[in-house]
Amino acid sequence: MKFVIIGGDAAGMSAASRAKRTMPEMDAIVLEKTEDVSYSACGMPYNIADADRPIDDLVVRTADVFRNKQGIDLFTGCCAEAIDVKNGSVTGTIDNGESFRFFYDRLLIATGGRPIVPDLPGFDLPGVVALKSLADGRRIKHYIKDNDVKKAVIVGMGYVGLEMAEALRARGIEVDMVKPGSDLLPWMPRELAAEVKRELDGNQVRLHLGGEITKIEKTGARLGVVCGDRTLPADMVLVAVGIEPNSQLAADAGIETGVGNAIAVNHQLQTSNEAVYAAGDCADAYHVVTGQKTWIPLALRANRAGWAVADNVCGQATSLEGVAGTAVFKVFNLEVARTGLSYEESNRCGFEPVDVTIQTRSRAHAHPGAATIWVNLIGDKKSRRLLGAQMVGREGVAHRINAAAVALHGQMSVKTFSETDLSYAPPFGPVWDPLLTAANQLLKKMT
Amino acid sequence: MKFVIIGGDAAGMSAASRAKRTMPEMDAIVLEKTEDVSYSACGMPYNIADADRPIDDLVVRTADVFRNKQGIDLFTGCCAEAIDVKNGSVTGTIDNGESFRFFYDRLLIATGGRPIVPDLPGFDLPGVVALKSLADGRRIKHYIKDNDVKKAVIVGMGYVGLEMAEALRARGIEVDMVKPGSDLLPWMPRELAAEVKRELDGNQVRLHLGGEITKIEKTGARLGVVCGDRTLPADMVLVAVGIEPNSQLAADAGIETGVGNAIAVNHQLQTSNEAVYAAGDCADAYHVVTGQKTWIPLALRANRAGWAVADNVCGQATSLEGVAGTAVFKVFNLEVARTGLSYEESNRCGFEPVDVTIQTRSRAHAHPGAATIWVNLIGDKKSRRLLGAQMVGREGVAHRINAAAVALHGQMSVKTFSETDLSYAPPFGPVWDPLLTAANQLLKKMT
Repeated sequence: MKFVIIGGDAAGMSAASRAKRTMPEMDAIVLEKTEDVSYSACGMPYNIADADRPIDDLVVRTADVFRNKQGIDLFTGCCAEAIDVKNGSVTGTIDNGESFRFFYDRLLIATGGRPIVPDLPGFDLPGVVALKSLADGRRIKHYIKDNDVKKAVIVGMGYVGLEMAEALRARGIEVDMVKPGSDLLPWMPRELAAEVKRELDGNQVRLHLGGEITKIEKTGARLGVVCGDRTLPADMVLVAVGIEPNSQLAADAGIETGVGNAIAVNHQLQTSNEAVYAAGDCADAYHVVTGQKTWIPLALRANRAGWAVADNVCGQATSLEGVAGTAVFKVFNLEVARTGLSYEESNRCGFEPVDVTIQTRSRAHAHPGAATIWVNLIGDKKSRRLLGAQMVGREGVAHRINAAAVALHGQMSVKTFSETDLSYAPPFGPVWDPLLTAANQLLKKMT
Repeated sequence: MKFVIIGGDAAGMSAASRAKRTMPEMDAIVLEKTEDVSYSACGMPYNIADADRPIDDLVVRTADVFRNKQGIDLFTGCCAEAIDVKNGSVTGTIDNGESFRFFYDRLLIATGGRPIVPDLPGFDLPGVVALKSLADGRRIKHYIKDNDVKKAVIVGMGYVGLEMAEALRARGIEVDMVKPGSDLLPWMPRELAAEVKRELDGNQVRLHLGGEITKIEKTGARLGVVCGDRTLPADMVLVAVGIEPNSQLAADAGIETGVGNAIAVNHQLQTSNEAVYAAGDCADAYHVVTGQKTWIPLALRANRAGWAVADNVCGQATSLEGVAGTAVFKVFNLEVARTGLSYEESNRCGFEPVDVTIQTRSRAHAHPGAATIWVNLIGDKKSRRLLGAQMVGREGVAHRINAAAVALHGQMSVKTFSETDLSYAPPFGPVWDPLLTAANQLLKKMT
């Protein structure tokens, strides 16, 4: 059995490792275009925050461990350029200029995603950076040091942008953030987004909402991000407007792509060609709330899908139900989490959403050290089901959201969720967990 | 409508408040034998830990608020002594010696529980205390101050005993804990219990397991807890061996009691007499995992059951599915949580349990500040269902357990639970949440 894997990041290496463990006699061939495999990509902002920590701290396993201990044929610096689905082969170029061709019995496309870079003047200037690969992280750390960066502009205000704002502030760097839209975290109710804004304000991150960017220009030794009639000066510009799936290779081979231009896969992670699987940020998934396809590129799904592909390739039929879109991020001392659909998404998906936003405390009555927790909970008036939850607070948010996520997987009604037996002790929350208080109020509003 | 409620604590006052909100014209009559209503009972150890905080900080609402703002006929110092179910009345004595009789259309028995005091010599000596009511808390705080308590013995090693060990150590008091059984937290796998033991050791709490207590004696100005051939000296002895339901009043009226001697109620919280409800620590509940009756006296259930009774009394038919037995407590810097059945309980309830115990990290690879998290997860080999979870760790335990609790309410299989989309960000956990890692390993073991 020849199992060829394009891409040696989360999904690809998870698949290779698991397949070799299950079928030690197989050939597991991984083609990775960079030099880095198996690292904590999500850990990069926290590493960048600390000048003294080497970026290689983030490496979980080196290429040599995969090669020597796990027996994986791992080729780094190897760029796949074409898939021939008819003959079952992948061709491409090694970084020494030689070309290669590998035949496969089963193929996994795990090419990940890439940062979107706006097609505007100046986004290719030195000092304009993006953060996706470990090489990007390394480059940013070097750039900050070598150029004594004192002022940065972040284009975009998503997860990565916000995490990087915190990281750069930790380095004593002034931070401006800019985006064309008028709302910070537009998928969030305004009360919750206002909390995030307050946290950014309190940490001297300047937000420029509604800033239509026209170009980046070089002004002396500095850069200038031009938006409208103002120019934001910077020593470094981080472009963090989102990512897009690396699906072109698949599309060129005639493999179907779908939502968000990601590679379309079924519950078994198979593409439109049954010998070809896709997993990770390049592939789509079913959403457990809508039952429809979605593209939510996140780390857990990538790892899980990699394993599922390995199981299927090894003959252990496996299917994955789908994702709930659960995500959490930290913005300075604030925890921000979501799962399922937002109110707008619920509307768009044909539900009849009703939502509540409540404010409660992170600890019991009279327990010292309590902070405010905000909860937004969404139910469907027709089916009575829970559709989504969002939370913001200084503590007790990151893991609480999982209770709602499990409820979404269970297609639970708001009523049943409101009756769940959640934990209580004074240091950790009120008697009625914030999610339960929200569920109780949502129930009233739904009747 | 005359709605009489015996007991003005969590269940009783929740019911009275909600009933009056729904039907302002009704008579809601609460008979409370103490002077305190509506306080955070679970907060008492944390209040006792701080000599400077008045115990009345724990009062959520005073009797006068209930009387004047909510229009509840709240009688404190009023001890119910007999229920006449035939004529629908409650008789008893007021603390001024007068007797009373109230007729009811609907009655709620919310008499709570009381600390078990072993029937052994010396347990009635001054300085031998228990903690259940606010009056108990007040008494303990005064006793510590007035007698300059330097050394305490805690009899029992359950939630309350452990929380009080932390509280007393915070006051600089030496603590010995003693119980007859040989295992600390016997419902817990040994690896997890060992973590709790280490935390107690590290905080100079001396544990005396297997200490068969024969009496408490007075030795000069001090007390001595005699167990086997040793005597543990103390300025104060806290008896915390558990609680029992105050169900005698109900039993005397011919109302059925069941598991743990608690008052038996149906899903609508009705007792064997349909005009009489019971809620709170005196009543039993259905367990969502077994479908059988159980008695797990905890605060959330008391509040929730109080509300459900109010709804039923007001004609809004409500039934409660049951409890999962979710509980969390803090032992110094350790969070300890459980939901559902333990391995032993699973066996006893006729399941064919399989369990795993894993050890993982509270934060992502290379993220600073991570601590160990222990997870024990239990599945049923026959039905494939998740049966229970237990966790111990310095962070990330208290709210994580709720994901498993919701899965239990949803009768989720271990496989479906292992596929849930739980949150991930480096400061809050590994890519695979500890519960997912445990579920993955449990699945392997179950096949």
